[in-house]
Amino acid sequence: MSEDTVGLAPAGPFPPAERAAVYRAIRERRDVRGQFRPDPIDPALLRRLLQAAHDGPSVGLSQPWNFILLRDPALRARLHAAFQTANAEAAARFPDRAALYSSLKLEGILQAPLNLCITCDRTRGGAHVLGRTHDPSTDLYSTACAVQNLWLAARAEGIGVGWVSIFRPEDLRSILRLPDHVVPVAYLCLGHVRELHTQPELQARGWGRRLPLDDLIFEDSWDSRPTA
Amino acid sequence: MSEDTVGLAPAGPFPPAERAAVYRAIRERRDVRGQFRPDPIDPALLRRLLQAAHDGPSVGLSQPWNFILLRDPALRARLHAAFQTANAEAAARFPDRAALYSSLKLEGILQAPLNLCITCDRTRGGAHVLGRTHDPSTDLYSTACAVQNLWLAARAEGIGVGWVSIFRPEDLRSILRLPDHVVPVAYLCLGHVRELHTQPELQARGWGRRLPLDDLIFEDSWDSRPTA
Repeated sequence: MSEDTVGLAPAGPFPPAERAAVYRAIRERRDVRGQFRPDPIDPALLRRLLQAAHDGPSVGLSQPWNFILLRDPALRARLHAAFQTANAEAAARFPDRAALYSSLKLEGILQAPLNLCITCDRTRGGAHVLGRTHDPSTDLYSTACAVQNLWLAARAEGIGVGWVSIFRPEDLRSILRLPDHVVPVAYLCLGHVRELHTQPELQARGWGRRLPLDDLIFEDSWDSRPTA
Repeated sequence: MSEDTVGLAPAGPFPPAERAAVYRAIRERRDVRGQFRPDPIDPALLRRLLQAAHDGPSVGLSQPWNFILLRDPALRARLHAAFQTANAEAAARFPDRAALYSSLKLEGILQAPLNLCITCDRTRGGAHVLGRTHDPSTDLYSTACAVQNLWLAARAEGIGVGWVSIFRPEDLRSILRLPDHVVPVAYLCLGHVRELHTQPELQARGWGRRLPLDDLIFEDSWDSRPTA
């Protein structure tokens, strides 16, 4: 087997029904805050979700992620308190929209049967990582891609995922005992859901709106509109 | 309709065949360098891929991404030269593995019928973005999640995607005329593929190995192994 063909197998487009399923997961995925059911996530199902994340792309095959399952009720209570502290600070940044901000449910830390922190170990793979030589942020991007894999797999499994990003960084670091070289990329709440929002909740509630895709597409350089 | 139920619709697990399709895309996705066919990507197909990216999660619904389609041959030649400059610098970081490093094909800039740079506008959404008040990197994570959406949709469409991260940042910025507030998160090569590697190419070629998933799972704090 030549170097050009090592381990290659035929590949092509999925059949239409399979292709539609992938787009369905992408389209129906939601950031879940209020729809979690209390029933636990089956260990085999959870394993599939973690494997999906672990199947993510990583710069230089560095696989910089770790998965911290958060189950202990006392720990979860501390995390919820840390969220509340940060969220009070956050609310003050939006004085013109204080009532709307306060009405938004932005986490399901205690309601969801499982919380999960996905981290990025900045030292994984050693001092030099192939593909990371010129952009040191690529390991963080890899970790975010792993999060998205898990999120889409979760949609297909009927598991809702909510990403909570409102913590003081030092609080998360202290409560989860993260060493300095480890970055908490995503704090996620997970649980079964029976219903989901049909559009992003921040859109439905009037906080933001979908940008037209055409406005975001350039050709050959920044701010240059496609000709065709 | 109460605030708690605005825009909710029934949701649950996908039927088994649809669920399997989502996992298939996740499992079979590869970082493609050498398998691109020269035939162009149909505009409607490309539109579906960009829509998949645009359906990605974004902090505070900020949608910080832009999509720069790179078609101009002269521009692509400059980008390829920029890669070669950076890759020579990169190779010098791996003196013990110089022969193996040099044998790896790490880009398909000229071979792929389309290149695409996905950027993150750090100013999108204004001075204060909901959910980004305590972690300013969350807009970059959103953009990486959009990249992963596109990558999985591409697998389902029979389109290979290769992520090229070996550029001097100032070269990409200059060639694509990016303003200072815009970060080039992912430089992608796209094209039809008829075959794909059955495992990550860096694994097949002996550069790296898959880490055991169990080694990456903690419970309740860093470095604490699950008891169950």
